[in-house]
Amino acid sequence: MQSITTSSYSVHFNDLAYKALNQHLDKSGYSTLFILVDENTFDHCLPGFMAQIEGDYHFEVIEIEPGEVHKNIETCTQVWGALSELEADRKSVLVNLGGGVVTDLGGFVASTFKRGIDFINVPTTLLSMVDASVGGKTGVDLGPLKNQIGVINQPVMVLIVTEFLNTLEERQLHSGFAEMLKHGLIRDKGYWSALKSLNNFDLIDEFIHDSVVIKNQVVLQDPTEQNLRKTLNFGHTLGHAIESYFLASESHETLLHGEAIAAGMILEAYLSQQLTGLSQTELDEIKGTFAKRYPKVDFSEDDIFNILGLLKFDKKNSHGNINFVLLESIGEAVLDIRIPQDLYFPAFAYYKE
Amino acid sequence: MQSITTSSYSVHFNDLAYKALNQHLDKSGYSTLFILVDENTFDHCLPGFMAQIEGDYHFEVIEIEPGEVHKNIETCTQVWGALSELEADRKSVLVNLGGGVVTDLGGFVASTFKRGIDFINVPTTLLSMVDASVGGKTGVDLGPLKNQIGVINQPVMVLIVTEFLNTLEERQLHSGFAEMLKHGLIRDKGYWSALKSLNNFDLIDEFIHDSVVIKNQVVLQDPTEQNLRKTLNFGHTLGHAIESYFLASESHETLLHGEAIAAGMILEAYLSQQLTGLSQTELDEIKGTFAKRYPKVDFSEDDIFNILGLLKFDKKNSHGNINFVLLESIGEAVLDIRIPQDLYFPAFAYYKE
Repeated sequence: MQSITTSSYSVHFNDLAYKALNQHLDKSGYSTLFILVDENTFDHCLPGFMAQIEGDYHFEVIEIEPGEVHKNIETCTQVWGALSELEADRKSVLVNLGGGVVTDLGGFVASTFKRGIDFINVPTTLLSMVDASVGGKTGVDLGPLKNQIGVINQPVMVLIVTEFLNTLEERQLHSGFAEMLKHGLIRDKGYWSALKSLNNFDLIDEFIHDSVVIKNQVVLQDPTEQNLRKTLNFGHTLGHAIESYFLASESHETLLHGEAIAAGMILEAYLSQQLTGLSQTELDEIKGTFAKRYPKVDFSEDDIFNILGLLKFDKKNSHGNINFVLLESIGEAVLDIRIPQDLYFPAFAYYKE
Repeated sequence: MQSITTSSYSVHFNDLAYKALNQHLDKSGYSTLFILVDENTFDHCLPGFMAQIEGDYHFEVIEIEPGEVHKNIETCTQVWGALSELEADRKSVLVNLGGGVVTDLGGFVASTFKRGIDFINVPTTLLSMVDASVGGKTGVDLGPLKNQIGVINQPVMVLIVTEFLNTLEERQLHSGFAEMLKHGLIRDKGYWSALKSLNNFDLIDEFIHDSVVIKNQVVLQDPTEQNLRKTLNFGHTLGHAIESYFLASESHETLLHGEAIAAGMILEAYLSQQLTGLSQTELDEIKGTFAKRYPKVDFSEDDIFNILGLLKFDKKNSHGNINFVLLESIGEAVLDIRIPQDLYFPAFAYYKE
């Protein structure tokens, strides 16, 4: 598959990925290659990755605990400390080999270590391949608040090796697939239609490429999130609040990111039907597509109040207003819609129907 | 005094500073003004500062503990948490009112909160006025290692109000004065000569302006520290190691930054005389100037070993080499000089003479 060029770096796929990596390492003269992994990617991805590196470099591996609950400043402090102890210098490079936690946290650690060293992202989950490959968002959570601390900074390259998807459980694949469906909803009805009838993840490679292309088009047109880029937030305003709430709540099982935003997209599609002209047919099509693929979340009235309480912390807001991205139709998003307070509970009621 | 324009913002002085601030606040439409202070600037600077703000804005004050020992990630986490709790959004601004700890830490906190909000620096110490006003370096310490964590990011404006210097002890003024002397040594012999005969800090305003101009020229020519900007590191390679060591050591009193780099400049001037052609006369002039103004540090042999052990962590190094900025003469610096190991102890011996 063809490489995709972003504002300042390229996303390379499969065989071309390793070729590009080896060429880059050969010419860069890094002092040390630090590879950031979690327990899972240490076992399942690191051996295959290392086998593809041709040159003779000085390596160090840094391992963090897996899971969103460890995507925080304490883990950053451990990684910064490990880099210092292992004598990382400004000519070191950090290779982030893992899912979104590893790439988001590793990108932030690299961007802030000695005021910034090079980093390379090698996403190993479907979610991080399609979502974190372009855009330069790095960061960690602050308590229950997702991605409150971070910077925008670009990796020197991103390598997508779809073989790593074989190491994932189906639930993880579905989580990433939700972001791909979102790319169709906000931008490309044809892509949405093709995706929603995809039943075999073995055929997903070309679709991953398409999703990265869509996200890249959006980010290139609006790198600083003044307008178009906000459309990527469809389903995320409520979805993030749901994800945060379930992460912090002791009485609920944690939702994967895609599962939370799948619920968020159904809710926000309902708001779109109420406020921005999304047809009832398309609303039902959206709900039906997600309902078929994702378990229904059981929201109590208390849960809903708590979730709405978390909304105000969303990064997209200012001056106390909550701005939503909604849909006019499948493939067409609109920005900066304010929601009348009395629509939230009906949205959850529609979700539960 | 005339404002100084940097790459992306201006440094305003005294009356013009408050005028520029009021104009900026009037047009920016910030949702909330957060003012970051420490215990000292809360008492001595905040009332005077607030009295000069003309509009009617929503204010919140966040206070941190004073001192370099609190310039760390834990304090950042407190400030990030306070911003979240006080519902800071992307249209909030953080005004850092304090010395280098407040401006460096506050700049980092603002640059990373929700991936970056505006910040305004109001340095209240001589050191932060002449050193931290331009260049965009933000950051905090990691254990004993100075400024290991940070980003390069610019404030929206810097306000230098020299009245705040009246709140400082003489020792603090001398600490900042060391950076001004450095500006002369690396760049402008005339400025060095004028400064070294200055005996009354009441006459310092114009010199502050000159120092900011010098630093700004350097940073504008080399924003990413490829070459010229490295000259600002004169005295700092050993000076930072000395400062770190005294900060972490329980048996030594902590040195102020300027006191540590004054010792560093004498040591590195000795290395310059040995390696890069600095004359004995100018070396003695440099040592004499600093010896007159700064207390002599009593380095034991153990201290020296420990200090040299910290050198490898300096951010300017790569591939295990230690690169020094040295002088060819007063006003002329040279870059990337490697030091033969057997010169360090003679340098300390010269310092002690």
